[in-house]
Amino acid sequence: MKINSKGWALLTDLYELTMAACYFENEMDQPATFSLFIRSYPPGRNFFVAAGLADALSYLENLRFTPEDLSSLERTGLFKPAFLEYLKNFRFTGEVWAIPEGRLFFAEEPLLEVRAPLIEAQLVETYLINTLNLQVMIATKAARCVAAAQGRPLVDFSLRRTQGRDAGLKVARASYIAGFIGTSNVLAGKEYNIPIYGTMAHSFVVSFPSELAAFRAFAQTFPENTIFLVDTYDSLAGVRKAVKAGRELKKAGIPLKGIRLDSGEIVRLSQAARRILDEAGFKETMIFASGAFDEYKIQQILAKGAEVNSFGVGTKMGVSADAPYLDMAYKLVQYNGRPVLKLSPGKMTLAGEKQVFRFYNQEGQMAKDILGLRWEQFERGELLLERFMSQGKITKALPSLVEIRERFLGEFATLDASYKEISSHPPRFPVDYSPALRKLQQETIREVREKELGES
Amino acid sequence: MKINSKGWALLTDLYELTMAACYFENEMDQPATFSLFIRSYPPGRNFFVAAGLADALSYLENLRFTPEDLSSLERTGLFKPAFLEYLKNFRFTGEVWAIPEGRLFFAEEPLLEVRAPLIEAQLVETYLINTLNLQVMIATKAARCVAAAQGRPLVDFSLRRTQGRDAGLKVARASYIAGFIGTSNVLAGKEYNIPIYGTMAHSFVVSFPSELAAFRAFAQTFPENTIFLVDTYDSLAGVRKAVKAGRELKKAGIPLKGIRLDSGEIVRLSQAARRILDEAGFKETMIFASGAFDEYKIQQILAKGAEVNSFGVGTKMGVSADAPYLDMAYKLVQYNGRPVLKLSPGKMTLAGEKQVFRFYNQEGQMAKDILGLRWEQFERGELLLERFMSQGKITKALPSLVEIRERFLGEFATLDASYKEISSHPPRFPVDYSPALRKLQQETIREVREKELGES
Repeated sequence: MKINSKGWALLTDLYELTMAACYFENEMDQPATFSLFIRSYPPGRNFFVAAGLADALSYLENLRFTPEDLSSLERTGLFKPAFLEYLKNFRFTGEVWAIPEGRLFFAEEPLLEVRAPLIEAQLVETYLINTLNLQVMIATKAARCVAAAQGRPLVDFSLRRTQGRDAGLKVARASYIAGFIGTSNVLAGKEYNIPIYGTMAHSFVVSFPSELAAFRAFAQTFPENTIFLVDTYDSLAGVRKAVKAGRELKKAGIPLKGIRLDSGEIVRLSQAARRILDEAGFKETMIFASGAFDEYKIQQILAKGAEVNSFGVGTKMGVSADAPYLDMAYKLVQYNGRPVLKLSPGKMTLAGEKQVFRFYNQEGQMAKDILGLRWEQFERGELLLERFMSQGKITKALPSLVEIRERFLGEFATLDASYKEISSHPPRFPVDYSPALRKLQQETIREVREKELGES
Repeated sequence: MKINSKGWALLTDLYELTMAACYFENEMDQPATFSLFIRSYPPGRNFFVAAGLADALSYLENLRFTPEDLSSLERTGLFKPAFLEYLKNFRFTGEVWAIPEGRLFFAEEPLLEVRAPLIEAQLVETYLINTLNLQVMIATKAARCVAAAQGRPLVDFSLRRTQGRDAGLKVARASYIAGFIGTSNVLAGKEYNIPIYGTMAHSFVVSFPSELAAFRAFAQTFPENTIFLVDTYDSLAGVRKAVKAGRELKKAGIPLKGIRLDSGEIVRLSQAARRILDEAGFKETMIFASGAFDEYKIQQILAKGAEVNSFGVGTKMGVSADAPYLDMAYKLVQYNGRPVLKLSPGKMTLAGEKQVFRFYNQEGQMAKDILGLRWEQFERGELLLERFMSQGKITKALPSLVEIRERFLGEFATLDASYKEISSHPPRFPVDYSPALRKLQQETIREVREKELGES
């Protein structure tokens, strides 16, 4: 199993461990709450799709320092024996509140809050951000592609250029949550039970004596799965050869499933290919397009009348090319019952343990969110954060990937279409601070200023 | 060990396996050569740093389909028993030529060429691109940061926002090759023996009753490693508190190592911090800066006179934010002795097995490269591609990471400074095609056109 979360205790920033050592020496291990949220939207974005919680919880539940980890830490010469002994028995014993996977959320809203003894809550920061940042970013990017494709099926083709192996797996999962129908990634198919798809490469075509020979051979081996790649030499000549091979299939009673265009002017080529196929009686044969697609290019070519039935969406989705990271942070908001914050310019945090309350209009469409404190209640306000872990154990049955995907598609349908349009300045979904959160924030800022900056 | 390459046989695109099945049925398993290269430069780039070969070779040497992999493939219903039986005994038995890690190379030049029976050479495509794309991209980005920092030490701080766990490890390794002095990533430190660095977080400061109390506690636990984060509430007030804690250290004969600025106007704040430190007698105390640094921001603030001694370089390097993927391709260039290519618009390949010949001027600076055929020879032309694997086994002792890093730093010094300037239209290093490569290309294009497009 490649996707487990054991053995990753050292996949952390050194400062998590040095701070922990210092807390340990100072017996500072009172309950701390950290809030994980995205500070602001990357350009063009105005919503986020929750993803990655299953991995995060699995990490927390299984976190252990192995003897090998401990000797490695000892060799750094930084840590005292008592602290290493503490790490030997380390378990995460805290509580986790989170927005379930597949739900929509917005900037500043906590995706997850950890409440645990300070050392534990601090130590898990790096890993939690690493896994949630990636999966939210990709699910969000993929959701934008799904919206742009207006119902046309999309397949994740990104594995070769995802940033590493782990990303390859998580991109397949996150894009599936966001409505993709499957992936080319065979391991992701196996590990997550996601449908897998594939056609053929140019190298396949050129390794045969001729393009037609390549199509015939493929049809022989996979008669039910014929999507011929037609652009190796000349796309429209390739379509005519696909038709030739398709006629041979037809005689055996097997339909020509599709052709794939992977380069050139897709609008013109897809229209011409459609005509060639239709005139030859292959009206059911689909046109599959790949090659540098993302939400922008999908929208653009469909607006120009491209005759594409389905897309392979690769690199630009798989690395979220126009926004390859999120401004995701994990900040201490309460320690030992005391609300805390930092005032750093442009990075001020909101104090206190939080909840997000969602409101719908009479048509069942999402109307607004209120970001408030955990104990608050609002009539008809749906609670977004749910408790998933207590005392270090998962306390809630996690939904299957298919259930998460359905939840996303259902929720996405309740988000007004205006929020899904591709735009450099998309409208912002309304998120208000609750009066109680505002009050706590003002009080905490005043206290901190008085104490640290001598203001009164 | 997290970084081994066993168990990844299914981390591949489905089409690699369907094509392989078709080759298998057609007994098409003659020697094939695939060339892995970067088609063109992303915006602003004009060189690449070779990285990732150790991983690629380890993958090839260890590639096996486990019984679990095979049952999973069987369950797809796509593959016949004879092919699955073939996969059961699958080994990579081919030859690999590659440019060693740490060397500079340029667009179109093969970073690696695989010569193996067609099925084997095809099956490894996805993994090879995945790992080499990431590592070359990051080493290149990191080298740009190193150039911009003009000798100031850089530390990789990107782990929390690398795209997944695997990227976290490989970014640490690739940036170290490119001249970074270390990483915050503890696991990368352990696995690759890279120096690890860390300071403290804002959460550390806010969890103490006061900022000064936080500094004192840290100095108590790590007296030799005091880099105080000063911007939690107000940066210059923070510097004054660092001075206070530093005076207490001084009494014990221990120097205040540094302060860290993580937000705000770094130019102004670093100059003011320097004055405060100098006036208090802390002339040796370094100013460490972090927060959204990359080659552009490093260059900009140094040009404006920022008083920064060292940088933590995070997210933007760790995802290569301005160029989060490379146009890396793995293309069949020869099959069964016959040179092959594809003509797809904008994606035409160069036929034949290749070599890169490098020439230096009299001052020992890199002067030009010639991209030619494998068998060619040029007087004083240094051969970039070396044979690293024969019959599926590594045949060359691989250099240590420190040796790779030294090789890079040595070679980078022979690249004229004009190529290292940050520019949206950087000058191009001259790479010529050899006459023999040109001739082969023209002949192959003519043959393909005649055969496939009926041209004469």
